[in-house]
Order: sequence, then structure tokens, then C-alpha cells
Amino acid sequence: MCVIPAKAGIQANQIIDSRLRGNDKIKKFMEDNKLIRMRHSFAHLLGAAVKELYPDAKIATGPAIDNGFYYDFDFVTPITDKDLGKIEQKIRELIKKVKSFDKAEISNKDAEKLFKGNPYKLELIKEYTKEGQTLTTYTSGDFVDLCAGPHVESMDEIKNAAFKLERIAGAYWKGDEKNKMLTRVYGLAFESKDALLAYEKQQEEAKKRDHRKLGKDLDLFIFSEIIGKGLPLWTEKGATIKRELERFIVDEEIRRGYKHVCTPDLAKIDLYKKSGHYPYYKDSMYAPIKIDEEEFMLRPMTCPHHFELYLSKPRSYKELPMRIAELAKQYRYEQSGELSGLMRVRTFCLADAHIICADSDQAVAEINSALDLIDYIQKIFGLKLGIDYWYRLSLGDRKDEKKYYKDDKAWNEAEDKLRKLLQKRKTHFMEAENEAAFYGPKIDIQMKNVRGKDDTAFTVQYDFVMPKRFNLTYRDKDGKEKQGIVVHRSSIGAIERIVAFLIEHFAGAFPLWLAPVQIKIVPIRENHNEHAEKVAQELKDAGFRVDCDTNEGNMGGKVRDAKNNKVPYTIIIGDKDIEAKKISVESRDKGQLGQMDLKEFIKKIVKEKEEKK
Amino acid sequence: MCVIPAKAGIQANQIIDSRLRGNDKIKKFMEDNKLIRMRHSFAHLLGAAVKELYPDAKIATGPAIDNGFYYDFDFVTPITDKDLGKIEQKIRELIKKVKSFDKAEISNKDAEKLFKGNPYKLELIKEYTKEGQTLTTYTSGDFVDLCAGPHVESMDEIKNAAFKLERIAGAYWKGDEKNKMLTRVYGLAFESKDALLAYEKQQEEAKKRDHRKLGKDLDLFIFSEIIGKGLPLWTEKGATIKRELERFIVDEEIRRGYKHVCTPDLAKIDLYKKSGHYPYYKDSMYAPIKIDEEEFMLRPMTCPHHFELYLSKPRSYKELPMRIAELAKQYRYEQSGELSGLMRVRTFCLADAHIICADSDQAVAEINSALDLIDYIQKIFGLKLGIDYWYRLSLGDRKDEKKYYKDDKAWNEAEDKLRKLLQKRKTHFMEAENEAAFYGPKIDIQMKNVRGKDDTAFTVQYDFVMPKRFNLTYRDKDGKEKQGIVVHRSSIGAIERIVAFLIEHFAGAFPLWLAPVQIKIVPIRENHNEHAEKVAQELKDAGFRVDCDTNEGNMGGKVRDAKNNKVPYTIIIGDKDIEAKKISVESRDKGQLGQMDLKEFIKKIVKEKEEKK
Repeated sequence: MCVIPAKAGIQANQIIDSRLRGNDKIKKFMEDNKLIRMRHSFAHLLGAAVKELYPDAKIATGPAIDNGFYYDFDFVTPITDKDLGKIEQKIRELIKKVKSFDKAEISNKDAEKLFKGNPYKLELIKEYTKEGQTLTTYTSGDFVDLCAGPHVESMDEIKNAAFKLERIAGAYWKGDEKNKMLTRVYGLAFESKDALLAYEKQQEEAKKRDHRKLGKDLDLFIFSEIIGKGLPLWTEKGATIKRELERFIVDEEIRRGYKHVCTPDLAKIDLYKKSGHYPYYKDSMYAPIKIDEEEFMLRPMTCPHHFELYLSKPRSYKELPMRIAELAKQYRYEQSGELSGLMRVRTFCLADAHIICADSDQAVAEINSALDLIDYIQKIFGLKLGIDYWYRLSLGDRKDEKKYYKDDKAWNEAEDKLRKLLQKRKTHFMEAENEAAFYGPKIDIQMKNVRGKDDTAFTVQYDFVMPKRFNLTYRDKDGKEKQGIVVHRSSIGAIERIVAFLIEHFAGAFPLWLAPVQIKIVPIRENHNEHAEKVAQELKDAGFRVDCDTNEGNMGGKVRDAKNNKVPYTIIIGDKDIEAKKISVESRDKGQLGQMDLKEFIKKIVKEKEEKK
Repeated sequence: MCVIPAKAGIQANQIIDSRLRGNDKIKKFMEDNKLIRMRHSFAHLLGAAVKELYPDAKIATGPAIDNGFYYDFDFVTPITDKDLGKIEQKIRELIKKVKSFDKAEISNKDAEKLFKGNPYKLELIKEYTKEGQTLTTYTSGDFVDLCAGPHVESMDEIKNAAFKLERIAGAYWKGDEKNKMLTRVYGLAFESKDALLAYEKQQEEAKKRDHRKLGKDLDLFIFSEIIGKGLPLWTEKGATIKRELERFIVDEEIRRGYKHVCTPDLAKIDLYKKSGHYPYYKDSMYAPIKIDEEEFMLRPMTCPHHFELYLSKPRSYKELPMRIAELAKQYRYEQSGELSGLMRVRTFCLADAHIICADSDQAVAEINSALDLIDYIQKIFGLKLGIDYWYRLSLGDRKDEKKYYKDDKAWNEAEDKLRKLLQKRKTHFMEAENEAAFYGPKIDIQMKNVRGKDDTAFTVQYDFVMPKRFNLTYRDKDGKEKQGIVVHRSSIGAIERIVAFLIEHFAGAFPLWLAPVQIKIVPIRENHNEHAEKVAQELKDAGFRVDCDTNEGNMGGKVRDAKNNKVPYTIIIGDKDIEAKKISVESRDKGQLGQMDLKEFIKKIVKEKEEKK
């Protein structure tokens, strides 16, 4: 449920951050988008309702968000979820009473008078205006808020909308934990009752599919307090999924000409100073470890490690493009509040690669092949381009010389080539300004999760800076030493994150090739155990993961257990099966398959495994 | 060339360290062993020769070692390798002149007088005796040394021996870098000329096989100054060997009922304090990393991580033995002088497992199965028990309560059971006192490298302490909560170290399944390239790693390149082959195989790969 259509070139969080800053593009976008104007108006109504019910409360800020709106308040006495009904009722009254949102322009002096005693608004006024400048306000009934707009033209526009106050949460003023903790009231708002209901249904389903819940229910991974936050421990079952995925990626990449290498997870700080990552990524790196008289860092990325491999020998044009790939363990600092299951962790394994190319044409061809590989992998998972994932072209800003390496010509050429490539692929893509890496533009792979939210899963980057910093050269046909271009890319992203995504996508019902237990065998009675073991062994010899349940306990319980664990196939072994020299198979996805020959079944599932269906 | 036979219960380095300490077992062993007595006598002769040629030099210590002897001196003017001939000549003169090594007992007061002005000997006298105690000296001609003996009875015993001064090296007094650097003169000494020649030949071969040299020649791994010492970067070829080995181990262990998991490479310091590893292993761990307000350590071992997985649920006797396995990255501090290629690194990947067993019988049965697995893997590599590797039973010391957990009954039971198990397996094994882990006895897998030196490659350990510290319990058949026994084991050791070992063992000529490039295809002329590519594709589709060399350059050079890179099979493609619809194959190990059908060749090598021959 991304509210930003392709090519809008702005992200939801930019809307929040820049609300008062007068970014013309964002203002235009909001004016065009009725749903956002409506949600923004609900935020004001929430502020108005709270001010009527709790006159002592101080209002901070209240934007539209992906599924509705929120407003942050500084209450004298904290409110609870129980108070939400009362506030909701007040909003409904205001919708009837207030006719419109009226815009006005005032000097910052008057604004300061208007919000006297409200430190939040006063801080914002100082921040956004200089002496003598003006600001806009919107007034709805008795409620005036500092706001760049836009809102609905009249309350009629809101009449058919559906809204609901959802929950209360703590939120630091400006998101900074050094500031005061405010009370945030969240509301849902949609264009109709049906849309709200559909959203709530989706959220309910998402809750059931939450990978943290399923990870526990299906025994895939755990966390341990004494080991530490953000450091998952994969159980046998989870590790099986991880291993199958990793082997699939490595084998597929090798098949496509990647050279899989292994480089260390830590290196001297000097390496990251050379690459320029150290000052840039310092805040997401862990503290250095002193070994003898040297300082080592856990690596936050793999690129400089791969460059050192490239540099170990003189290179010729014949060796290019050189695709250096690795399942690379990386370490990045995340605040403990940001950690979330496998989705946000403190160490992860990235399916990483750095392709050293002779020139920009080769680089673009390699990016094209990388997108082919990405599409191939996504298709394996049943994900559709334009629906489940899409591309975003992230561009630099020629004016921002602090954030982006200064080389206008190279930026223009690179951005132009990537745009043309995406157009040629006839694919859905959007463009985002000011989202590039410091060394060049990139194509982000945006994926939508079961909650309807989209996020950058991983990227393919074009880099004309690192080849200079590391002097990544090669001897060309003409005998001259030339500098290459580097493509940084992942093919699937971080293994931890993709597993989290797939758990939710499949609701834990993994396809055969990924399922931790592929077949469960249930003997009806104890005297069927021996035959069950034989069948199990034959399936194991054919390369399958089999759980032959000869424990005490009744058959019903065992079959239920297979269903709860989402095992793709369950085989029941009883007298009739032994007599007929057959097996009775139940498929998780297709129900009862009836009696069949074991050899025939093996043939069927070998094909299914190979086809990764 | 281990000079310590099985059951001697002492290690070579113990002989050096304890020489003057009057350890009765060691003295007895040296008396029994003629070669050691002879080498020790050569050390004295070296001391005597130096004192005659350089009267100002101060003598420190000079023991027998694995291949001869050495003596450490403090020279006024440093000598060089050029001076060795002169010293060697002097030793030959002394052998003729000096008749015997005469033992005498003197008071420590007299000893201090005797070695007045020699700070090294004075320090040793202080260290090994108290007021009024005596020491022994050995006199040979004019040379007197402080020494516990024994030596050869008379020079006749040395007559047929062969010796040679080998080289000069720097060595800190007592091996401590804070002390003065002395000059160490190394000598080789063997019972006969033939034995010395055989040793030198072995060393020459070992030099050719040195994994650091072959690692470079065959492009398997590199080191980078800016990344850091002891941190190898595996190239595509090296990483291929590593990956094949790792997959083989993981698949084989899973086949044998191990549960392969993945746990984090770092954890809070509290975890290692709980396990008791922190104070014990502190010196080989890296400094803690502060994250928010917590301290994290790079893990030096995996056990407590696996215990946390075990503890994540209540466990039943039905689940035991639970074999938790992992290819576990570990980090251990090594002094930079100790680092050596892949053999001694600062981070390595251990094929690790912890088997939680219900009781000691189950633990012994699991150790037995672990030894089966080890024997199976070694056999795959063509290594023979009793020749290339053997077992060592490492025992505790009931009196040393600092080093070993105090529980005499448990120690006795465990040691007795392990000894009986090894006897029952009718295997070569030796026993080593005072070499156990702090939590129980262990079986060390000792491997002999191409230089003839043996070392502990990895271990299988019996642990009755960790189950107490971590409260590793299970509910037994009788409904009672009981405490288990843990078996710590590796199946192959650290991947880095085994690859180093195998590079030397195979002299870089890896068996088909491990070879980075398995088949090289050489078209005779350019017009054979297309057919060569077709053959290459067919071989790739059959799962092989193929290098189809269609580059410019002559055929001879390409074939030579395949030989230099020790590629198992080379296929030449020419007119005759295309006409006959056959391929001409040359095997690295068996020479020309002649023309054959491609399908037939694939069948042959698929079998060879599967059989890992």
C-alpha cells in the first residue's frame, strides 16, 4: 500500500519531514493526491478534538502517513487507549460542525504570539523562518495550526471517508531520544468503509504471517538475551531454509559467470579510510578492536575486500568484466529500538558482488544481466515485477557536493544510461531524487511486504569513484593502462531479510525445495513402524528431508502436527498400503493424492524440487 | 617424524621446558631414547665449540629437538651463517678429543660461582633450586654445563651419527619478547648419514609442497597488508575447494543425524563469563566491542551458543542424543609471529558440534560414532590411521585443581571409559598426561604433516562441567529432570587448516571432486573453438568446472598451463576428434587416455567425482 505512485520521485517519509519546508514538488504532489489531503485534514481534526477535550495539552506535529495520520501531543496527564473513543466521538462532531480548512499567511512574529507557551511550535517557527518571513496557518473551527497544507476544500470531501483512532504510542520530539517523549495518537483513514475494512483484514492476515510469530511457531530461529539483541540463532529448521537458499544463489551465480570468493569479516581501519567508507558510514560501524598495535573493524560492507583481491595481480581487459561475488557477513549498528526479528539485525549475510567493468557500456550490460538474475530469482519465489516488487532509479543531486562525489559529466552519463536501460527493459520503475550512493546512481529493488508497506530490499549500483580511490586498472587491447567502472549489486539481498520476507510471503508454507521437513511419514500402528522406516530411508536416499514419526502417540495427533508444521507431504502407512505395496499421500497444497507407487511419488517430487515450485 | 612413541605420555616441548626440572618420567624417557641422548650431547658439543672459538660468548640453554638440537648464545659480536662451517669443524675435532660426558653434583652456591658473569645460568640456578639444594653438571673436555642429562655414555655412541649445523635464528631468552634476543644455532642430527639424507630430502619435498608457496602458484588465496595479518582472502579457486569441503562435511553430518544450525559470531561478554571461558581463554580472545551500554566479544568457541539453542525449550530424553552442529566462524588471538599461511590464522571456520547426551554411556557411544565419522573422512582423503594420523588420549591431573574442574569420580570414570573405547576400537593411540580440557578428558586427533611434524589437528571432548554451568537438563522416562553430558567434537577441524594440510598432502594435485578447475579444454586451432565450447557446455551441464581456453596463444602453452595448474583432465579438440565425434583426453594422474566418446567420459568422471577418488 504505497501511497506514492511510480515516478512521483518522493518518499512517504520525505512528506513527513519536509511538510513545512515548502518543497514545491511535495506540495504539488499532496495537492494532487486526494487521499493524502484527506488524511492530513483528519490529523488537524484530531488536534482540534484533543484541544477541546484537553485544553492544557500542547500540540506538536501531525502529518498524513501511509495508512492514515497521527498527531503528537504533550499531555499534562497522559491519556490511555480507553480515551480514544471519546476523542473519536469529538472528531465526528467536529466534522459536522467545522465547514472548511482556511488558509492564512502570518508573519513569524505573529506566529510566535499565536503559539506562545508551546515550545514545539516555537522551535519550528525558529527553524523554518528568518526575521520578517511569513508562514501559513490553517484554521478549522477554533483550531489553528501552523501548516503548509494542503487540506480538503470542504468537509464534503471527507463525508464518505472512513476513519478510526487506532492506538497510542510514545514518540520522542523530532524522533530524537534526547528530547522529551510525547504521546502519539495514530488514526487510520481511507476513502471508504470498504477500503478501511480491506486494510484491516490485510493487517490481520499480516499479523498471522508475521515472521517473528511464525519463526517461533515453526521453530525456525530464536533470540537469546545473554547472546544479545539483533543476533538471531537459526535452529536446524531455519538453518535448512538458509542453507538451501544460499546454495541456490551461489550455484546460480556461478552458472552465470560469477567468481565466488571468501574474504575476512574484519579488516584494519585503514582499509575503510582508503575506501572513504569510514567517515561516511562511521555511525553504522562498530567500535574498532585493537589487536597488537593495530585497529580492526567488523566490516560494514564488502567492496574494499573484493578490490584487494582484484589488486592482487596485474589485470588484462580479457579478464573483464570480472564478477567477484560472496555470501558476505556484514556488521551494521542498529539502535536496539530499530531491531525487528530477522528483518533488522546487527549482523547479516549479504549475497554481494562487485563487477569490475572495462567501461560504462560494459557496466550497463552487466547491470542488465544483474536485473535478469534478479527477475529470475523473484520468479522462482512466485513474485511479480510491478506488483510484488519494482525498480526505483535513485539519482544524485549535482548541487550537493557534500553528499555526492563531484563529477557532473559522469553523473549525467550514468543516470542517463541507467534510465535508458530501464526504459528498454519496458519495466515499471519510479525515479527518486537525492537517493543515490555517494559514488554514483543506483537501481533500488523495492519490495512490498504482507503489511502492504514497501521498502528497498537491495540495490544495483553504478560506481565511478571507487575505481579512482583504489586505482582499479587493467591493461587494454592497445597496451594502455585504463581505469574501470564498478557495479555493486546484490541478487537477493541479505539472507536474513529475504527469509523473513519469504516466511511472511508463504505464510510459513514453504515450497518443497525450501521446506525444512519435506515429507512426514505416519505409521498407523506400531507394527507399521518397520515398513515406515524403509519408506523413509528410500526417500532420504533420494535426497529428501524426512521425518518418520514412530514415536508413541496417536495417528491423528501426528497428522495434525504435520499440518501445523506446514509439511508439504504426509504419507500414512497402514495394512492396506503394505499389502498393495503402495503409499497413501496427502499434499499440503492439493489435499489427498490417494495411493501411489513409491517410485512414482519420488519421480514426481524430484521434478517438483528441481523446478522449485 | 615424531620422536615420542605412543604411550610415552610426554610431548617434545615438555622435554625442552622441563629439562632441568627433574621430572622423573621425562628423565627416564630420555635415558631410554638413544637418539635424544645423542642430540642432547651434540648440543653440548656445540656449546663447547662456540666457547672455544668465541670465549666471550655467554651460553644460555641447548636442548635436543625433533630433528637435532640447538643452543642459544649471547655473542659479543653477532655471528653469521658463514661462521657455521668453522663451528662444525670444531665440533668434529671435539668428538675426537673429548671422551665422555661426566656427571657431577654441585651445590647451588658452587654453581653460582662456576657461572659467575653468566646472567642466564644464574637465573636458572635461582629458578630451579632453593638455598642449600644441589644441581647436576655435565663436563665434556673443558666445557661444563648445568644439565640434568642424560647424554651418550661415550663418544663411540656418536661415531656413526650424522650431524650438520643448519642455520642461525634469533630467539628471545625464555621465548619472551620482553627479554634479550639471543642467537640460536640449529643443528640436524640423525643416527646415520642415510637417515640425515632422507630427512633432508623430505624437507626439500616439503618445501615444494609448502601450502604458502602452492597457494600462491595455484592462485588459491592471498593476504593483503591493508586488510591485516592472519586474515586470508580466498580467491575463486581456493573458495571452490573450501566450498566443496564444507558442503561435503555438512551433508555427511546431516546424513549421520547432526542438526546443522547457525549461531552468531559474537555475543555479550556475559555468555563467556557464564561458560567460564572468559577468564580461562581471555588471552586468546579479542578486546570487547561496546554496543550501546553492552560489551560484545567475537566468539573464541561455539559451545555456549549451542547450549543457548538447547535451552530455548524444555527437552525430553526422546530428543537425546541431540547433535547440534555448525560450520562455526571463530576468532582467536595469535601473536603476529605465530601466524603462518592458512595453518595459523586469526579467524577460522571450525566444523564444530556439541552433542547433548543423556548419560556417560550415551556420550561414549557418540564419541565412538564421531571417531567413525573422522575415520571415514580421513579415508576419503587417503589418510591412514596409525600412519598419517592417530589418536591421543589426553588426561587430567587430579592434583591440579586450578587447571581442572574438581570431581575425581567423574574424571576417573570418563578417562576409564575413553581408554576402554580406544582399546575396543583396536586403534593406535597414545596417552598424554595433563593435556585435558578443564571440563574433562579428550581424544586428540594428531596429524603428521609433510615436514614429518605431528600436531593436534582437532579434538573430541567429554564434558561433565558445562551441563552443570548451563543447567543442560532433560525430562527422563521416569519424569525426573536430569543433567546430561556434553561431547564437544570436530569432524575435520578448521577448514583453513585442513585446506593447508590437503594442499601439502596432495602437492596441489587435488582429487577431481575438490579440484578448482576439473577439466581444461584446448582447441588446437581457432576453427575448433566452436566445437570446444559445445563440449565445454555439455560438461558444465553435467556439473563440472570447466575452463575452455579459446584465448589466443599456442596449444603447447595452454596444455602446459593445465599441467602447472594440476588440472585433473585436459581435452584436446582437433579435426580428427570432430570427425570421429570423439574427444582426446589426457589425465593428470594416468597420462594419455586416448580418444573416447564424450558421454562415456562424462559417465567415467561422474563416478570418479561421486566416489571422491
